[in-house]
Amino acid sequence: MIYGLLTIAYRFFKMSKIKNIKVRLFNVPLSEVLSDAKHGDHTHFELVTTTITLEDGSEGTGYTYTGGKGGHSIKAMLEHDIAPALLGKDGTAIDEIYDFMEWHIHYVGRGGIASFAISTVDIALWDIKGKKTGQPLWKMAGGAGHTCKAYCGGIDLMFPLEKLLNNMKGYLAAGFNAVKIKIGRENLDEDIARIKAVREYIGPDVTFMVDANYSMSVDKAIECSKRMEECDITWFEEPTIPDDYLGFSKIAEATNVPLAMGENLHTIHEFEYAFEQAKLGFIQPDASNCGGITGWLKAAELSRKYNTPVCSHGMQELHVSLVSAQPNSGWLEVHSFPIDEYTIRPLVVENHRAVAPDEPGIGVTFEWNKLESYEVKSAPVAYSGHV
Amino acid sequence: MIYGLLTIAYRFFKMSKIKNIKVRLFNVPLSEVLSDAKHGDHTHFELVTTTITLEDGSEGTGYTYTGGKGGHSIKAMLEHDIAPALLGKDGTAIDEIYDFMEWHIHYVGRGGIASFAISTVDIALWDIKGKKTGQPLWKMAGGAGHTCKAYCGGIDLMFPLEKLLNNMKGYLAAGFNAVKIKIGRENLDEDIARIKAVREYIGPDVTFMVDANYSMSVDKAIECSKRMEECDITWFEEPTIPDDYLGFSKIAEATNVPLAMGENLHTIHEFEYAFEQAKLGFIQPDASNCGGITGWLKAAELSRKYNTPVCSHGMQELHVSLVSAQPNSGWLEVHSFPIDEYTIRPLVVENHRAVAPDEPGIGVTFEWNKLESYEVKSAPVAYSGHV
Ligand SMILES: [Mg+2]
Ligand SMILES: [Mg+2]
Repeated sequence: MIYGLLTIAYRFFKMSKIKNIKVRLFNVPLSEVLSDAKHGDHTHFELVTTTITLEDGSEGTGYTYTGGKGGHSIKAMLEHDIAPALLGKDGTAIDEIYDFMEWHIHYVGRGGIASFAISTVDIALWDIKGKKTGQPLWKMAGGAGHTCKAYCGGIDLMFPLEKLLNNMKGYLAAGFNAVKIKIGRENLDEDIARIKAVREYIGPDVTFMVDANYSMSVDKAIECSKRMEECDITWFEEPTIPDDYLGFSKIAEATNVPLAMGENLHTIHEFEYAFEQAKLGFIQPDASNCGGITGWLKAAELSRKYNTPVCSHGMQELHVSLVSAQPNSGWLEVHSFPIDEYTIRPLVVENHRAVAPDEPGIGVTFEWNKLESYEVKSAPVAYSGHV
Repeated sequence: MIYGLLTIAYRFFKMSKIKNIKVRLFNVPLSEVLSDAKHGDHTHFELVTTTITLEDGSEGTGYTYTGGKGGHSIKAMLEHDIAPALLGKDGTAIDEIYDFMEWHIHYVGRGGIASFAISTVDIALWDIKGKKTGQPLWKMAGGAGHTCKAYCGGIDLMFPLEKLLNNMKGYLAAGFNAVKIKIGRENLDEDIARIKAVREYIGPDVTFMVDANYSMSVDKAIECSKRMEECDITWFEEPTIPDDYLGFSKIAEATNVPLAMGENLHTIHEFEYAFEQAKLGFIQPDASNCGGITGWLKAAELSRKYNTPVCSHGMQELHVSLVSAQPNSGWLEVHSFPIDEYTIRPLVVENHRAVAPDEPGIGVTFEWNKLESYEVKSAPVAYSGHV
């Protein structure tokens, strides 16, 4: 009874209503055109930031990113459907707000744009939580550790071989001992030749993954997997479409190379199906599109149940804290969309391991002045009298 | 060889490039507040229309709708991501454009907002196809028939009993012999009392379905199903969350009442899982959110493989043609969002059956002047220099 009253009193003490939500969209150019098997050429990435201010003055920023499409749609959902409904709610009640958002936009949600939009709000609320309690994200997210294994992943499918190998040289020089390349060319012989050349170049001690961006049929993926077995491949990422969990399972059973996926799983249900049916060796949730930190931690919880190391996709500057914090920590992807170049603390790597920030909050602080010129300045939201 | 050349020549003759795409968003008020178990109160529905003009002057309009959230996001995706990429493509190549759209926005797609946006384009292209070839939709979509069974479905969970029964009276007076009500109140006893009262009121000869809008746990749904067995319920719609296919299966095995779902299945993969695992008695795809007419017909094709009658959800003015055209035609839902009141031919019902229009195209022509005052006039799209 007394404990209950104390809990309520404490809750009342720390609660603070959401006062303002500001959403910004940036279209950030890449230094060169990057290509993979299914998304074509990337010239920019989109960054959507959501900054939330509570009535007590505390403030946090969450974000998501895309390969160049969907940013306006994410921003529109945040501005028209999510933000107006969150104003006045307790910004410290992260789980309640997460549940509310899921139901609020359920009919047009359950994955897709909604998951990206929800993620930005959730991450902003975790940022506020960390700042209010003085805790860094790696502590809030489990606290098992503050460093993790990391690898460099290129979007390099169309790079000529010499340039590809030069990339590898750059990764190793930057302090990494693990690399990933894109595969999925029309002609499988070309993929295999590139894989062999990279393995020869990096030598036997560097960890090596490949990623087909779901471009292959199940049969082609099995053939590819068999032909690269001799190259000591740590994982084969997204061999076929993410929706075909049983196809993944067939590929996994046919060869020795472990499978990985996660960047295209957007709801906890999709993670459940993947764990249950796809026979994965590694899971790679992305907090920017699976429901933020709350969604990522739910996927991580499932990964322990299924005894699968939890890795990440994209935005290394945030995921370094999440991956490091897990007892079953896998590999942090260092992605070629360099979001961390626009923050005050680009990813830190020491002794081949990525190091999580100790700063309270999510540890990702944007340098807005660096981003400003890339902002997509759509006209201010205008409502008709009927909205 | 000659045949091949003729095909190419014919193709060249009929092809015409997409010249213009215009997207409009309307926020249409309902005549009264409508409530269900999971989406809360509806005061408006959103209507998004996409009008496509080809270089040869032919024009068609497709559309989607929502319960009041997501419309801006759908419009933003159409205007920023989809429309610019479609200009100049052959507007008669419906399958190619469908595939293109799926891959183009895949990373932020596979369901959710993307499925709603894609649907509007696909429906517009079918409208053009029908107009160019002089065929009504029911002929293009299979041609098995031009009428189908139809039922009235209310969003009436919170209506007092008298009002609920009065609704039934209205349905029967309007020429229908099949009705559906919402269930899913906190207290199951109240649901059962309403179900019994409705069955008593309509008598034994009227077809009767119920819809819980996925508000129940599997256990509660089983209890509900058992308690309503005596009321001759044709189907129990969305007893639990659409993602829980195996939960559906458990409910189906525990009782005699057939299950139905579909309005929340947005990709062909989701339909495959539902057919394979959920033990459904009826499938209810909605062309406004499962990829338009192309997506609906793919689901209908699967329904024949699994021997399941194909029904529909929402926008009766369009689905009447699709449901009527199938050899395994099920029931057309006459939904309480009255989109057809804003078209020149509101749904026609004769001898308890809905009648498909014979007009070339999709047979849905909006009365724009009736809609105009509900248009949400957001400022014109403005791009920054970086887009
Ligand atoms: Mg990948
Ligand atoms: Mg329903």
